[in-house]
Amino acid sequence: MEAVKVGLLGLGTVGGGTATVLLRNAAEIQARVGRAIEVSHVAGLGIADQTIVDPAKVKLTEDAFEVVNDPEVQIVVELIGGYTLAKDLVMKAIDNGKHVVTANKALIATHGTEIMQAATAKGVTVSYEAAVAGGIPIIKAMREGLAGNQIQWLAGIINGTGNFILTEMRDKGRDFDDVLKEAQELGYAEADPTFDVEGIDAAHKLTILASLAFGIELQFEKTYTEGISKITTEDVNYAEELGYRIKHLGIARKTDNGIELRVHPTLIPEKRLLANVDGVMNAVLVQGDAVGPTLYYGAGAGAEPTASAVVADIIDTVRSIDVPADQKVPLLGFRADSMRDTPVLSIDDAETSYYLRMSAEDKPGVLAEVSEVFAAHSISLEAVLQKEPSEGVNLVNLVLLSQQVQEKNMNGAIKEVEALAAIQGEVVRIRMEHLG
Amino acid sequence: MEAVKVGLLGLGTVGGGTATVLLRNAAEIQARVGRAIEVSHVAGLGIADQTIVDPAKVKLTEDAFEVVNDPEVQIVVELIGGYTLAKDLVMKAIDNGKHVVTANKALIATHGTEIMQAATAKGVTVSYEAAVAGGIPIIKAMREGLAGNQIQWLAGIINGTGNFILTEMRDKGRDFDDVLKEAQELGYAEADPTFDVEGIDAAHKLTILASLAFGIELQFEKTYTEGISKITTEDVNYAEELGYRIKHLGIARKTDNGIELRVHPTLIPEKRLLANVDGVMNAVLVQGDAVGPTLYYGAGAGAEPTASAVVADIIDTVRSIDVPADQKVPLLGFRADSMRDTPVLSIDDAETSYYLRMSAEDKPGVLAEVSEVFAAHSISLEAVLQKEPSEGVNLVNLVLLSQQVQEKNMNGAIKEVEALAAIQGEVVRIRMEHLG
Repeated sequence: MEAVKVGLLGLGTVGGGTATVLLRNAAEIQARVGRAIEVSHVAGLGIADQTIVDPAKVKLTEDAFEVVNDPEVQIVVELIGGYTLAKDLVMKAIDNGKHVVTANKALIATHGTEIMQAATAKGVTVSYEAAVAGGIPIIKAMREGLAGNQIQWLAGIINGTGNFILTEMRDKGRDFDDVLKEAQELGYAEADPTFDVEGIDAAHKLTILASLAFGIELQFEKTYTEGISKITTEDVNYAEELGYRIKHLGIARKTDNGIELRVHPTLIPEKRLLANVDGVMNAVLVQGDAVGPTLYYGAGAGAEPTASAVVADIIDTVRSIDVPADQKVPLLGFRADSMRDTPVLSIDDAETSYYLRMSAEDKPGVLAEVSEVFAAHSISLEAVLQKEPSEGVNLVNLVLLSQQVQEKNMNGAIKEVEALAAIQGEVVRIRMEHLG
Repeated sequence: MEAVKVGLLGLGTVGGGTATVLLRNAAEIQARVGRAIEVSHVAGLGIADQTIVDPAKVKLTEDAFEVVNDPEVQIVVELIGGYTLAKDLVMKAIDNGKHVVTANKALIATHGTEIMQAATAKGVTVSYEAAVAGGIPIIKAMREGLAGNQIQWLAGIINGTGNFILTEMRDKGRDFDDVLKEAQELGYAEADPTFDVEGIDAAHKLTILASLAFGIELQFEKTYTEGISKITTEDVNYAEELGYRIKHLGIARKTDNGIELRVHPTLIPEKRLLANVDGVMNAVLVQGDAVGPTLYYGAGAGAEPTASAVVADIIDTVRSIDVPADQKVPLLGFRADSMRDTPVLSIDDAETSYYLRMSAEDKPGVLAEVSEVFAAHSISLEAVLQKEPSEGVNLVNLVLLSQQVQEKNMNGAIKEVEALAAIQGEVVRIRMEHLG
C-alpha cells in the first residue's frame, strides 16, 4: 500500500521531535499500521538549516500555506502554536479536505467549536491528543476508554512549569520568585511566565477535557483561572503540617446546577497519588460513575513526549483514513448533534472546602469571634492551627480548614472576618479538595 | 439508525455490572455513539430469577449457545470465565461472524493466538480491555495511545488481591496468612487463592500486555511466575527501612537478547508512584522510547469498574461495526502479518537487582566472607544492613542489596554463600527494580 503523506508545519521542539520519532520508529509504526507514514513536506522558518529530515526526500518551505495547499499532503500536522496563523492554516487545511493533527491547546480551547464544525462539514478529522498533558493519552481515555461512563469530575496537574515550582517550594522551602527564575533558566518556563503560572495554559487544557467529559462546547472564557504566584512557603508548610500538599489543579465537576470549571491552587490530601506527582510531570484523575477513579500520569511537555501524542494521532488518522467520517469517533467524544448546553457555573456558585490563614491579635476570645462569623454563615470548620507568635510580635497566625461550602457564602464570611478588629490584613484563602 | 443487538453470556458480577451500566448510561452512550446499544439476549444459569434486565424486552436463556447462534445478535459478550465452555462459545461466535467482547484473561492468555487467528480470518473483532487491570483503559493505551513508541518495558500491579495483602502487611504489620483470611472474608480472594497469590492471574495479564508491547505471540507458558505467599513481615520491614516497598509486579522488558516476562514480588523505591498504589487498586507503568514513563491507575476488579471496560469495548465495536476489518486497529496492536518472533528469555537470563537476607553467625569476618563470594561473581553490593541479635541468640540477620546482575550468576553466588559455615539456612532473595 502507498505511504500516507504527512506535512509538518513547524520544525521546532515538538515538530523536530515528531519528525525524529516518525523516522526512528518507522518500522515499528508500519508493523502496527500496515502502511508507511512519510513526512513528505515540512514548513518552518529558517528551514534550510534544519538537520532532522533528508532534504532530498522532503519538500522544505518557509511558507506553511504551500504545505496546506499541496494536493499531495493528506495529513497536516500543525505545530506552530498561537491563534492567528495557526488558525488560518488549520482552517485552510480543512477546507482543502485534509486531516489535521495539532498540539495547539490555545487554538482548540478558543477556536475549537468553529474548527470542529468546519471539519465535521468537510468529513475530515481534527486530532489534538498532544494538546492536553503532552504524552499522556488522556484524550483517548476520555473519548474512548471511559466512554461507557458518565464522568462526574476530573482534576488534573496539567501544567508542568507550575508543578515544578510548587514541588521545589515544598521540597526545598524555596520562594516562588526564586524557583521561577530557575525554571526560566532550565527552559521549563518562558521569559513571560504568565501563561503557565497564572493558569491560562491549564485553563486551555481544562476547557478541552471538560468538553470531552460532559459533551459541552469548548468554553475557555467561562473557566475560572487563578495562578500560583501568590502561594507562599508559609502556606505550603502549614498545608504539610495538616497532611496536605498544594497543587495547581484544573478541576471540572458536574453538579445538579451545572458544571464547575476552575483552575486554582488546591490543597489535596498528601496520601492521594495526585499529591505525589512531582516536578514537571502531569497527571489527570478522572472519576466515572462506573469505573470510579482512574489516573493517568506522564510527561506533560518536551519534544518526544509531546511527539508521542502527535504520532499516535497521526497513526489513528492513517488507520482510519478510508473510514467514512460518521463511522469514526466523534471529534469531541460526543456526536456533534448530541452536544449538551449544560451551563457552566460562575466561581461564586462553586462548592469546595477552604484553607484559610489570617493574622490575629494574640488575646483571648479572638478564635471565638472568628468561629462565630463562620457559624453564622453555616460554615463548619474542620481543623484549627494556631501558631505561637514570635518574640515581641503580638500577632498569631490562625489557620482554619472549612468543610464544603459555596464560594459566595465563603466570600461573605471572609469579608466579615476581615472586618473584625482583632484580624489584621486580608484572609488568605486556598481552595481544598479531598478527591475521594 | 437501528439499535445494535448485544448478547451477554453470564449475568454474574461482571455480567450484571455490564447490563446495569448499559441501561443506566444508555442516553450518554447513544450521544457518544449515535445509535442505541440494546442488550437483546442474556444467557446465565438460574436466569429466570434475575432482576437486572426486563424479561419482556430481553431473550433469557440458560443455554449460552442459543445466544451465540442467534442471527439477531451482532456482538457476543463473554463473561462466563474459564477456558473450556468460554472458548467453545467464543469460537462459535466468531464462526457465526459475530464480534466478541470478553473479560476473560485466562482465555486470551492461553488460547488467544488461536482465537485471534479465527477472528482475523472471519473479519470480526475480539476485544478484551476488561481482561487486564479491570477498568483501566490500558489495552487502548498500549494498542493506540502509545502506538508511536517502541515500548522498552512495563511493570504493573495487576492483581488487586495480592496488592491488598501486601498493603495490609506493610501498613499493619500483619502476617500473610492472617491478611489472606481477611481478604477471603471480604470477597477479595477466592476460597482457593492460588490464582491470585501465586501470580497466575497476573501472569495471564502480563502475557497480554507483553504481546501488545512487543508485537509477540501470546506466550503464557513462558512467563516466569512467583507468588507472594513466602513474603514475611520481616522482609517488608527491612525493605521499608532501606526505602523500598514490596509489590507483586508483572514485568515485561525488551533486552538485546530477548524479552523478559516475569511475575514476582519486587522491591521498588518508595518514592515511585507505583509504590504508593495501595489496597485492591491496580496500576501499570509503561516506558516508551519517545514518551518516557507513563502510568495508568484504577480499580482492577469489581462489577462496574470491569463493566466500564467491557462497555468501552462494546462502544468501540459498535462505532466501527461497518468498518472493514483491515481498516480497524489490529487485534493485538500489531498487524497479524507483522508479528515478531523475538524470543522470550528464561528467568535464568533475566537481569535485575536483588534484596538478599541471610542468617549469619555473629562473629568477625562473616561479612567479609560473604562479600568475597559476591565479588568473585562480579556482583556489586549496594547496601548492607546488619541487625544486632536478640538476647541469647548467636545469629544476626544480614541484609544486602545487589546491583543489576543476571539471575543465573546470582543463583551461583547464593549457592556458594549458603555453603559457608557461618551462614545458616537458605538465603531469602527478592528481586528489586528501580523503575527509573
